[in-house]
Amino acid sequence: MSYGNVFKLLKEKNKDNWILYTKHDFLKKLSAGTLKEEKFLNYLIQDYLFLIQFSKAWSLAILKSDNLEEMKIAASTVNDLINFEMELHISLCANYGISKSDLENADEENQNIAYTRYVLELGYSGDLLDLLSSLAPCVLGYGEIGINYKNSNPKISMYQKWIDTYSSKEYQDVCKNVSNLIDQAFMLRLGDNFVSTYKWKKVNKIFNKATLLEVDFWNMAMK
Amino acid sequence: MSYGNVFKLLKEKNKDNWILYTKHDFLKKLSAGTLKEEKFLNYLIQDYLFLIQFSKAWSLAILKSDNLEEMKIAASTVNDLINFEMELHISLCANYGISKSDLENADEENQNIAYTRYVLELGYSGDLLDLLSSLAPCVLGYGEIGINYKNSNPKISMYQKWIDTYSSKEYQDVCKNVSNLIDQAFMLRLGDNFVSTYKWKKVNKIFNKATLLEVDFWNMAMK
Amino acid sequence: MSYGNVFKLLKEKNKDNWILYTKHDFLKKLSAGTLKEEKFLNYLIQDYLFLIQFSKAWSLAILKSDNLEEMKIAASTVNDLINFEMELHISLCANYGISKSDLENADEENQNIAYTRYVLELGYSGDLLDLLSSLAPCVLGYGEIGINYKNSNPKISMYQKWIDTYSSKEYQDVCKNVSNLIDQAFMLRLGDNFVSTYKWKKVNKIFNKATLLEVDFWNMAMK
Amino acid sequence: MSYGNVFKLLKEKNKDNWILYTKHDFLKKLSAGTLKEEKFLNYLIQDYLFLIQFSKAWSLAILKSDNLEEMKIAASTVNDLINFEMELHISLCANYGISKSDLENADEENQNIAYTRYVLELGYSGDLLDLLSSLAPCVLGYGEIGINYKNSNPKISMYQKWIDTYSSKEYQDVCKNVSNLIDQAFMLRLGDNFVSTYKWKKVNKIFNKATLLEVDFWNMAMK
Repeated sequence: MSYGNVFKLLKEKNKDNWILYTKHDFLKKLSAGTLKEEKFLNYLIQDYLFLIQFSKAWSLAILKSDNLEEMKIAASTVNDLINFEMELHISLCANYGISKSDLENADEENQNIAYTRYVLELGYSGDLLDLLSSLAPCVLGYGEIGINYKNSNPKISMYQKWIDTYSSKEYQDVCKNVSNLIDQAFMLRLGDNFVSTYKWKKVNKIFNKATLLEVDFWNMAMK
Repeated sequence: MSYGNVFKLLKEKNKDNWILYTKHDFLKKLSAGTLKEEKFLNYLIQDYLFLIQFSKAWSLAILKSDNLEEMKIAASTVNDLINFEMELHISLCANYGISKSDLENADEENQNIAYTRYVLELGYSGDLLDLLSSLAPCVLGYGEIGINYKNSNPKISMYQKWIDTYSSKEYQDVCKNVSNLIDQAFMLRLGDNFVSTYKWKKVNKIFNKATLLEVDFWNMAMK
Repeated sequence: MSYGNVFKLLKEKNKDNWILYTKHDFLKKLSAGTLKEEKFLNYLIQDYLFLIQFSKAWSLAILKSDNLEEMKIAASTVNDLINFEMELHISLCANYGISKSDLENADEENQNIAYTRYVLELGYSGDLLDLLSSLAPCVLGYGEIGINYKNSNPKISMYQKWIDTYSSKEYQDVCKNVSNLIDQAFMLRLGDNFVSTYKWKKVNKIFNKATLLEVDFWNMAMK
Repeated sequence: MSYGNVFKLLKEKNKDNWILYTKHDFLKKLSAGTLKEEKFLNYLIQDYLFLIQFSKAWSLAILKSDNLEEMKIAASTVNDLINFEMELHISLCANYGISKSDLENADEENQNIAYTRYVLELGYSGDLLDLLSSLAPCVLGYGEIGINYKNSNPKISMYQKWIDTYSSKEYQDVCKNVSNLIDQAFMLRLGDNFVSTYKWKKVNKIFNKATLLEVDFWNMAMK
C-alpha cells in the first residue's frame, strides 16, 4: 500500500499523532469485536453528519482546481460521496434501526463540528494544497486503517462490514486517485523541491492539526 | 415546455431583456445558417472557458444546499458538466480543428469574464436562491432556445448539431431537474408567498442582470 | 441593559444553554478571585488566537452586507478588532509575561478551532443573518457577562481588569451597535414577522450551537 | 515614485496594456479639460458602485492574510474605503447634483461588473497573492495616474479635484502601504526567487487581465 510521496512525507513529520489516530482504542476494540455496539451506532450517526460536510469540502476542491484534470477527480469524488456513499450509509444505518430522519435530525457533536468546519474553512480561505492536506488524513487514513485491520475478524458483522468497506478494492482505488491528485497538485504548484517552500511548512501544520481533530473524533465516539 | 413556476415569474418581470437574449441575432443567423463559421468557432472556444467557470459555480450550489436532496441534484449537475459535457465539447471542437490545447490556452474575453465571475461571486457571497437565479438564464434559457429553434434546419451541420443538443430529451431533462430544484429551494426557504419577500426583489435583479450578461455574451460572439 | 429584540428572542429559545455559558464555573471562579492564574493565562493565549479568527469572520459580514450602512458597522468592528483590540490584548499579555511571539506560536486547541471555524464557515456558506447569529453569543454574551459580574471585585487585578473591559461603556457601545445591526438586518431581510420564517428556525439552531461551542471554550479553559 | 519591486516586475511584463490603461483617452481628455462633463458624472456614479465591491474585495485580503501585520494593513484599507472614501465620494457627487439615492439606485454596467466580480471571485477562489495582483492595477495604477497628470491643470474644477485626490500625499501613502504589503506578501510566501515560480506566471496573467478590465472601464466611461 502506498498513497504517494506527499502523503508519505506529511506522515513522517507527524508520526506520533498518526499512530494516535490510526491505532486508536476505538479501532482496536472495533477490530477485536469488543466495542460496545451503542458506541458504534453513535459513531455511524455522527459519521453521516460528517459526510455531508466532507462532501461540501470536496466541492471546494473543484473551485480551487487549476485545470480540468484536477476538476475531474474532485467532481467524481464529490459525486461518489453524495450520490452513492450517502445512500450506502443511509441503508447501512437502516439495517441497524437508524432511520434517515434519525440521521437528519441528529445533533452534530462539537468534535464533529471542529473537524468538518476546520476543513471547510480551509477550503474557502486556503488553496487546493491547504485543502487537500486537511482532507488527506481522513480519506487516506481510512484507507490505511482498512488495510491495517483487514485480517482482524471482529465477529460482529457490522464491524466486519466497516473494515471490508475501507479495505475493499473500490475504496483503495479512491485512495489511489486522491493520492495521485495530491502528488500532481503539489508538483504543479511547488515543483520538485516542494519540501523547501513556505507552503510546505503550512501544509504540515494543517495535516498535523487535521490528524488531531480525527483523534478527537474517535475520542467522541468512545465517550 | 415548462420550467417551473419560479422561472416563469422571473421571466415575466424581465420580458424585454429575455427576448433580447433568446432571440438574439446570433441565434437568428445560426438557425438560418447564415452565421459566419468563424464566429461560431470563436463562440465554441469562449463557451469552453465559460463551462469551466460555470461548473465551478454549480459546485457552490452543493455548498449552499440545506439538505441532501438539493446536494444530490447539484452534485449530479456538476459531475455531468465536468466529466461528460466538457469531453463532448472538446471532441466537438476537435471535429472543427480546434485542439484541446487551443481551448486551454485561449484568452477569456471580458464579456465572458463578466458573466461567469458575476455568477461565481454570487455563489460565494449569496445564498442558494441568489445563485440559482443567476444560473437559470443560462441553463433554462438554452433549453428554451433549443426548443424555439428545434425545427429551423440551418443546413450547416455544426449549427444543426448545436440546436439538437439543446432541444434533446437529455438536455430537456436537465432543465426539468434544475427547474424542480429551483421551485423547491424557493418554496422551502420563502414559503408559498415568496413573491412578497425582500429576497424576491433581489433575485429578480439578479435574474435580469444575468440575462443582460448573456446578451453581451452573444454580442461578443458577433463581433 | 438591552441588546435588541432579535437577541432577546434568540436567548429565550435557548435559556438553559445560555445559563451554562454566561454562568460558567470559569466565570464564577474568575469573579470570586479563586480561578487559578495559570488557567487564566492559558485562556488569554487561546483568546488571542480566537480573536484573529473572529476578526476574519467579521470581515465576512462586510461581504455579506446588502447596503453601505451594514458595511460601515461591520468595517468599523473589523478595524477595531484588528487595529486596536489585538494590540490591547498583546500588551495585556505582555504585562503577565506572555510575549507576542508566545501568542503567535501557541497551538490552537480543538475547542477553540471548533467555535472559530464554525463561525467562519457559516460566514462563507451562510448569509448575513446566519453569520450574525453565530457571532452574537460571543459579542453580546461577553457584554452581558461584563454587566453580570460588574460588582464582583475579584481582588486579583487582572481578573478585575478583564471584567472592567467588558462592562466598560466602550464595550457596551460596541454591543449596542452590533445589536442594532442585527435587528435592522433581520427586519430588512425578513420583515416584521420574522419569527414565522424558515430562516428563523435556522438561526435559532445556529445561535444555540454557537452558545454550546462557547461553553466548550470555557471547559477548555478550566481543564 | 516607486511602488515596490513586485509591481515594477508585473508592469514590465504587461507594458502595452499598461499604457492603454494609464494613458487612456478618458484621462487625456480629463487632464486637458476636454472631457464632456456628462461622461465624467456617469463615471463617478459607476465608480461609486465600483468602490462598494472593491471594498468587499479588500475584506477578503483580511481573510487570506497569514499574520497580524498583513491583517492590519488590509483592515485599515477596508475601513478607509468604507468609512471615509465612500463618504467623500458621496459628498463629491452631491456637489455635482448626484444624490446618494441616485448612486444607490444606479445600475451597474457590464464592464463595471466584469472587473469587480473578477477581483472578488479571485479573492474567494485564490490566495492573497492572486487577490493583491488583481487589486494592484487599480490602487497603484490610480496612484501612477495621479502623478502623471499632476501638473496638467484641466481648468474644470472637478477634474482638477480628481487629479489632486490621486496625486495627494494621502493617496500616495496608501500606495506605499499597499506596495509594501504586496512585496512582503510575495517574499514571505515565495521567497527571493519568486519570479521562477508557478505562482508568478499565474499572477502575471491576473495582473494583465485586471489591467484590460480597467481599460474597459474607461471605454465604458467614454461611451
